[in-house]
Amino acid sequence: MAKTNPGNFFEDFEAGAELVHAVPRTITEGEAAMYIGLTGSRYPLHCSAEFARSLGFSRETINDLLVFHIVFGKTVNDVSLNAVANLGYAGLRFLLPVYPGDTLRSVSKVVGKRENSNGKTGVVWVKTVGTNQRGEAVLEYYRWVMVHKRDPSTPTGAADRPAMPKEVAPSELVVPSNLDLSRYEEWPSGGAAYFEDYEIGEKIDHVDGMTIEESEHATATRLYQNTAKVHFDAVQTKQTRFGRRLMYGGHVISVARSLSFNGMERVLGILAWNGGAHANPTFAGDTIYAYSEILDKADIPGRADVGALRVRLVGLKDVGPTEAGFPLKVSKDDGEAYHGSVVLDLDYWLLVPRRVR
Amino acid sequence: MAKTNPGNFFEDFEAGAELVHAVPRTITEGEAAMYIGLTGSRYPLHCSAEFARSLGFSRETINDLLVFHIVFGKTVNDVSLNAVANLGYAGLRFLLPVYPGDTLRSVSKVVGKRENSNGKTGVVWVKTVGTNQRGEAVLEYYRWVMVHKRDPSTPTGAADRPAMPKEVAPSELVVPSNLDLSRYEEWPSGGAAYFEDYEIGEKIDHVDGMTIEESEHATATRLYQNTAKVHFDAVQTKQTRFGRRLMYGGHVISVARSLSFNGMERVLGILAWNGGAHANPTFAGDTIYAYSEILDKADIPGRADVGALRVRLVGLKDVGPTEAGFPLKVSKDDGEAYHGSVVLDLDYWLLVPRRVR
Amino acid sequence: MAKTNPGNFFEDFEAGAELVHAVPRTITEGEAAMYIGLTGSRYPLHCSAEFARSLGFSRETINDLLVFHIVFGKTVNDVSLNAVANLGYAGLRFLLPVYPGDTLRSVSKVVGKRENSNGKTGVVWVKTVGTNQRGEAVLEYYRWVMVHKRDPSTPTGAADRPAMPKEVAPSELVVPSNLDLSRYEEWPSGGAAYFEDYEIGEKIDHVDGMTIEESEHATATRLYQNTAKVHFDAVQTKQTRFGRRLMYGGHVISVARSLSFNGMERVLGILAWNGGAHANPTFAGDTIYAYSEILDKADIPGRADVGALRVRLVGLKDVGPTEAGFPLKVSKDDGEAYHGSVVLDLDYWLLVPRRVR
Repeated sequence: MAKTNPGNFFEDFEAGAELVHAVPRTITEGEAAMYIGLTGSRYPLHCSAEFARSLGFSRETINDLLVFHIVFGKTVNDVSLNAVANLGYAGLRFLLPVYPGDTLRSVSKVVGKRENSNGKTGVVWVKTVGTNQRGEAVLEYYRWVMVHKRDPSTPTGAADRPAMPKEVAPSELVVPSNLDLSRYEEWPSGGAAYFEDYEIGEKIDHVDGMTIEESEHATATRLYQNTAKVHFDAVQTKQTRFGRRLMYGGHVISVARSLSFNGMERVLGILAWNGGAHANPTFAGDTIYAYSEILDKADIPGRADVGALRVRLVGLKDVGPTEAGFPLKVSKDDGEAYHGSVVLDLDYWLLVPRRVR
Repeated sequence: MAKTNPGNFFEDFEAGAELVHAVPRTITEGEAAMYIGLTGSRYPLHCSAEFARSLGFSRETINDLLVFHIVFGKTVNDVSLNAVANLGYAGLRFLLPVYPGDTLRSVSKVVGKRENSNGKTGVVWVKTVGTNQRGEAVLEYYRWVMVHKRDPSTPTGAADRPAMPKEVAPSELVVPSNLDLSRYEEWPSGGAAYFEDYEIGEKIDHVDGMTIEESEHATATRLYQNTAKVHFDAVQTKQTRFGRRLMYGGHVISVARSLSFNGMERVLGILAWNGGAHANPTFAGDTIYAYSEILDKADIPGRADVGALRVRLVGLKDVGPTEAGFPLKVSKDDGEAYHGSVVLDLDYWLLVPRRVR
Repeated sequence: MAKTNPGNFFEDFEAGAELVHAVPRTITEGEAAMYIGLTGSRYPLHCSAEFARSLGFSRETINDLLVFHIVFGKTVNDVSLNAVANLGYAGLRFLLPVYPGDTLRSVSKVVGKRENSNGKTGVVWVKTVGTNQRGEAVLEYYRWVMVHKRDPSTPTGAADRPAMPKEVAPSELVVPSNLDLSRYEEWPSGGAAYFEDYEIGEKIDHVDGMTIEESEHATATRLYQNTAKVHFDAVQTKQTRFGRRLMYGGHVISVARSLSFNGMERVLGILAWNGGAHANPTFAGDTIYAYSEILDKADIPGRADVGALRVRLVGLKDVGPTEAGFPLKVSKDDGEAYHGSVVLDLDYWLLVPRRVR
């Protein structure tokens, strides 16, 4: 019998099928420390047991992006080992805090598939749910990828393109029920801005930059047990169009979000992603910069103490946000494409304390 | 009095002497996380507390190779600081699971020494035992190294070459007594193969490759508190025949074993090494590939639920196992030697669940 | 309102003001493991729960330099983001052991400021105290930095240069009150020397070297949540006089101290720093070596079991201490300056067990 996993091809995905991903993972203090070392994250909810307790948590929680990377990493082996491209995310919601010691697993359901007209590839839509050791969902999201067909000469007839949520409505955002701001202190986060202080349309240039080394993104990606070969194999990737290892796009998100602490210090967590794009590939040696644009502000039903900021987090490479004088998208062929220096365009909802509560 | 340790020379080893190695080490969740980040290991017994508990363990256990590296690392300072070459391993057995929080120490006994005819070097054989904080042995192995003589002009007359075990017999393999497969689930490991599905002579090409950076092998080797200078000092190693830092051979074993998860997902652990060779040196920038060859299968006395697979784990550099069209060994001078792309040849026993139990 | 922190300028510091630094940090087993992986530290008090318990501690303690880096890292954002130079340290004392799980915070008091005659910069003196979650001080030190003025054209008149302690007197050294050597064993540390065996004037050449990669110092510095841009941003640092990223000087201290284990194995901790200088900048690719010179020996009031060694720890780059035939300082212009290969000159007090107690 065949022993190694060559990954699923387009034909292998059955609409409605449930993929139970292997390798459950207990996230410990070790992963939390490595995440800080690899990304420079400073959000005190994830690095101070005292601050977390002052807000009603039992101890410091796991960074939401670390939760995402672990949940996502498990799916690669079944969903995207033969992916040509990661096309998009939608409807991502964080549902429950994760603590050191919790064990996460991931299950994905195939919610649609459509063959491309070239006959060589198709698009597969999945909904992935990450759960803890009590079976409680901690994270869910839709994702779609373009994957190779095993047999380009035989049409499959698959033509089911499911509707993806355009955004997560404020009423769908989940604030941790234990969160209690009655003992909120300002000094642990630093910064000056509360929910009231951010204005729609405001652009915040995060002033720091971070150069990423080959060993850093590879170590992070191994930590997430993500098995995509393009991140690890310098010999095989010589044959690809980039000729070298590609950085895991999730690492760029992590770095951009860590940089965004400077200007958004009081953010308590990511509530949801409306959508996101890895606008351009990143490689070792690239220096990541970021800016945030406030897209919207929303009340959260039942909570007078916190609000939701809808933010566009843009990652740039090798040019700072203040120096970058170009538009996000430029005309290309008949349409438009991201400027070559843009590496991330993420539209997400952030949980922010109110000054008046 | 002399303060720094120049390492032992051939004359310093006394047959029968016991070397109590310094620096006991508590292995924590931190080491376990770093091991995953540096090697990409995915065996769920070592990363999921839930999976481990379902098999009768109290929580996730420490990867057996991490245990080996920690136990081995302590011995370097006393055994091999002046080694010309690591000649071999024999009779290595894992004896007891190690958990986060356990504290390991190592003791080596000199079991033989023989001066080489050139008068400049000699071979020293040691038996090393790693024990936990309760004094229970968790690992034992024989190892022999060629070390410099302090005084090449004075013969020592040492001519004692002890017999090394050619292999570990199945009856000597130690299965953790707590292991209980009555609640074994398939999904946490993924993969499809049980003990019954592996055939003697079968070759499994592990399809992934991993490029190793200088900082990765050095960080792993520091984590093991291994003090061999050749892995760390770029200035001093300029004077060596390689002209650069050498990768710790144990890191190659770790990476090869992590790669072997794809095709051997249900393996529950290493039981023993029959022998092994670091066939060729590896350096930063090398991309490691691996294949496994099933050498033998054995029942384990008293256990109907698991079997022992004797496997040859071969590590290659810069060429995948399927592409490698060369024999392991090639003729060289009057004898034969490993092909230059072969970096590891390890003969070990693996613990594998049976389908029918 | 402005969201991002541009750092304080000379005018922003008020004499007597207290800067409460953001981002309290729970130090866990994860940080402890990463510290070993990044520096190669082997002091058994910090890596063996059993050894620590034998000395009266509740478990392994956090390496004192890791405590320093965490406490220091928090201050960068408020004190030295616009620093031209780190001028010095004085009166640094470790006051209490830190355990995994403790949460540290830092507060700095401005103890003096003096404008430079060029009008462009000034010197600011601060006293920083690191405290644990019970509010107990674990570390304190004075530090002074040269920072840019916001407005070079307007003199501030600041001319207050506070007296800095020239040294920490033996009577001010704090030995952990729980330390009990009645069950002290020799093997966990290895080495041979006790307090009695070190002689004033003795020089100990630590025989190992360690080459540092870009990802190693950057990961360490992110782990400490130190935000100084010069360590992370390869694009921005192209414009600096070095044209590249600068290694955090604290990483050099960590590496030099780890190297010093070989020859000073029984040292139980750093008690204090009398003063220190980052003599020359270090960069990725540099190989660090170290030697220790015994400056003084002192009894510690009330303790017959331990003594204090005053040691000069010198770090070198790319040349070993035995090979280095040059003086520490050479004449330059009208004065003298450190030889270009000297990267660290640290004067500190170490806690060492006595043979006779």
